[in-house]
Amino acid sequence: MKLNWKNEKNLGMLVDLYELTMTNGYLVNEVDHYWVYFDYFFRRVPDHGGFAITAGLEQFLDYVLNLQFTKDDLDFIRSMNLFTSEFIEYLKDFRFSGDIWAIPEGTPVFPNTPIVTVRAPLLEAQLIETMLLLTLNHQSLIATKANRIVRAANGKPVVDFGARRAHGADAANFGARACYIGGCFGTSNVLASKMFNIPAIGTMAHSWIQFFDSDRLAFDAYVKAYPKQVTLLVDTYNVLKSGVPQAIEVFKNMQLGSKKGIRIDSGDLGYLSRRARKMLDDSGFQDTTITVSNALDEYRIRELEIQKAPINFYGVGERMITARSEAVFGGVYKLVALENNGKKMSRIKLSEEADKITNPGFKEVWRLYDNNNGNAFADLITFKNEEVKEPYKLFDPISPWKSKEAKNFTAKKLQKKMVENGVLVAKLPTLEEIRENLKVEMAKLWDDLLRFESPDRYFVNLSYELWVEKQNLIDKYRMHQ
Amino acid sequence: MKLNWKNEKNLGMLVDLYELTMTNGYLVNEVDHYWVYFDYFFRRVPDHGGFAITAGLEQFLDYVLNLQFTKDDLDFIRSMNLFTSEFIEYLKDFRFSGDIWAIPEGTPVFPNTPIVTVRAPLLEAQLIETMLLLTLNHQSLIATKANRIVRAANGKPVVDFGARRAHGADAANFGARACYIGGCFGTSNVLASKMFNIPAIGTMAHSWIQFFDSDRLAFDAYVKAYPKQVTLLVDTYNVLKSGVPQAIEVFKNMQLGSKKGIRIDSGDLGYLSRRARKMLDDSGFQDTTITVSNALDEYRIRELEIQKAPINFYGVGERMITARSEAVFGGVYKLVALENNGKKMSRIKLSEEADKITNPGFKEVWRLYDNNNGNAFADLITFKNEEVKEPYKLFDPISPWKSKEAKNFTAKKLQKKMVENGVLVAKLPTLEEIRENLKVEMAKLWDDLLRFESPDRYFVNLSYELWVEKQNLIDKYRMHQ
Repeated sequence: MKLNWKNEKNLGMLVDLYELTMTNGYLVNEVDHYWVYFDYFFRRVPDHGGFAITAGLEQFLDYVLNLQFTKDDLDFIRSMNLFTSEFIEYLKDFRFSGDIWAIPEGTPVFPNTPIVTVRAPLLEAQLIETMLLLTLNHQSLIATKANRIVRAANGKPVVDFGARRAHGADAANFGARACYIGGCFGTSNVLASKMFNIPAIGTMAHSWIQFFDSDRLAFDAYVKAYPKQVTLLVDTYNVLKSGVPQAIEVFKNMQLGSKKGIRIDSGDLGYLSRRARKMLDDSGFQDTTITVSNALDEYRIRELEIQKAPINFYGVGERMITARSEAVFGGVYKLVALENNGKKMSRIKLSEEADKITNPGFKEVWRLYDNNNGNAFADLITFKNEEVKEPYKLFDPISPWKSKEAKNFTAKKLQKKMVENGVLVAKLPTLEEIRENLKVEMAKLWDDLLRFESPDRYFVNLSYELWVEKQNLIDKYRMHQ
Repeated sequence: MKLNWKNEKNLGMLVDLYELTMTNGYLVNEVDHYWVYFDYFFRRVPDHGGFAITAGLEQFLDYVLNLQFTKDDLDFIRSMNLFTSEFIEYLKDFRFSGDIWAIPEGTPVFPNTPIVTVRAPLLEAQLIETMLLLTLNHQSLIATKANRIVRAANGKPVVDFGARRAHGADAANFGARACYIGGCFGTSNVLASKMFNIPAIGTMAHSWIQFFDSDRLAFDAYVKAYPKQVTLLVDTYNVLKSGVPQAIEVFKNMQLGSKKGIRIDSGDLGYLSRRARKMLDDSGFQDTTITVSNALDEYRIRELEIQKAPINFYGVGERMITARSEAVFGGVYKLVALENNGKKMSRIKLSEEADKITNPGFKEVWRLYDNNNGNAFADLITFKNEEVKEPYKLFDPISPWKSKEAKNFTAKKLQKKMVENGVLVAKLPTLEEIRENLKVEMAKLWDDLLRFESPDRYFVNLSYELWVEKQNLIDKYRMHQ
């Protein structure tokens, strides 16, 4: 299978040092024949939202399936004087040979659900941790934030204008991809457009206006270059006294059928868009679009929408590309089981906080849809080999006396096998398919999950079998300490 | 001059679409023979701090001096059906041929100070905008945040543990570089260590402990691999009942002179570090270090330091590598002057907010140091050719009746000429020199600027000549609209 995007950088050394020291340590302790299972999951939705959106899987798979260590990498590792020559030999021939299951990109997901499960030889599973985390955490963060902003805009197109405030080039490019997954209409970033076939959108900068020294001269010059379609920036000097009136004069000279728009990038966007709309309409330019930008996010856009501001496009920059309100997606990668000579052993990590204790074992994730209305009403985590038949008793894993019997539902496995023995075995969806998947899955969520403030809680249940195993492991580790 | 770091990716297309449409538009309007001046500056210090720290210049220069457009790029641009063939011809032979002045990396800087000034042919100056902004904004953001965290730690080493929560690979790598500029001791990111010669630091993950199924077995296995130096993670099951006691047992068997440490990654780090310290001391391990981590930032570290928690190393992850408390550095790139046939014309951008109006013209930035104590007491922005002699009348550019006469000071030019006619003409400092520069310059700041809350305001003044030009331009544009 060919991947859509080619990693152009050698990222073999993008590991936390402890991935290398642990891997080397496993070799020294001669336990490298073990296979292990790791789960990638998160514990809390950013911005106190109702759900997160998966993104970044394609880039992670591209990394893991192409991961090798160059001579230069090995020389550097040798120079650290921490590692055995056996370990360096091991890295020389490294290829990932394990299996990977994952929930597809563009799926709404909830805390504690295993989004990615890796089954691989111990050393391989450990070495890929850092890049797995940073790739999936970054894009899931931005896709989740972008989706909030897109929802606030009530179907009006939202465009990513954030490249200049992104945390480096990768953040601009993969951030634009994640914004598009989250539902954006396009991006100003031409490289992201080229890499991912996202519509490229642009207007003009204040420097264009400043260069020509007046709104009128600048607008005329732009129309000369782009007679069929322009979006004129009207706020360099004064929106209502210069920008909009001059734009109207220029529009009057444009050819029939040309697309006309203005952009307002400062001031009160509600007031200015209403006044500008009226001026445009009064001059016969009812079709002229109004784009607004300037520190927008879901809260500001929601306010503008509530006021029915006559806005056609939202250009969103720094607050989307950095997920400024909460710039961290706290996904973790935890060891859940070992396998040796065909025998599996579950593993757990304890914590003083009950909901931070990991779910042990090799697992399956199910989403349960109500057959009456098609809506998802719970996720269910079971061991891999369990069956889910109705009636099925669901209970709160933290407060197990809270239970209910689920009937008349359809259970769908969320994870898909992506990689087997180091080979990609699934067809990766296009970005358009990922966007469509998100639309379909979001339509099955209860509206109560979509609120920005105090969304309803969605239950992620454990099977009884898994819950018992978890309790037994908790008892075991509490006792033998 | 050879640059230390080689850009491995083709980032020619990492431009906002409007950079291309404007550039093409300038060609269509036959104004491409103009030269222009752009300033890069910011308007507000993140986290309401007293100053920001410059970083990212080396990567920006590497980009601009190597910028070319590949055949693939040109094919893509052609496919957009927006551009003239003349423009594509222009891009084919593109090389940056202008001049760049910049304040060196690792300098404390204040709002409205031109950090970078670009003088170049109009098209070139416009095309480099997006990458200039994202490179300098990103690293300055992280260096500024890291420096706050380092200051909170009272001289105890702070290590960057953030790769897994960074916004993509570039954010992890260049973020680690910026953390190091800001004063960090090292990074867990091996690639950043390799790229920038930053000390690589690591301990072990919970997965190591989980794999071996008990603290004791896991610690023994680690010591087997690393008999001379270990930092044992003690919080997988229970810090005080298992982790620390088992670590002590293992330390007893370690060879004389070995370096020993523990890491605590959860729970109350003040309480646990005090209890662990006592247990270690009571067992004769006074030299054993205590590293703590888990959602640390300058506020949490300050609290721990105020309580005199016996902590030796701080591992700081997501809140530093993403600058989570305020993940945006709002640097902008504004046209300030044109040049045609040897004649210069200043340009300004107006705004309803007085402090958002740009400072016009080709300028020089001076830092004024008091000869009595060596401390910086103000920055001064003048036209490039002005002299600064004492006594010098300083006044607030927003409230010009507030003035004072400065005497007995030394005025230093902050910007340095880095590029002339497209050629690097300055020797780039090493990272160690950048760190040293920051130490020297910070020692000259008044303590009142270092507060996290309500730091003192540092004045950035304009020369009288520049101020008059600015007022004239404001009047001109207000009138002719």
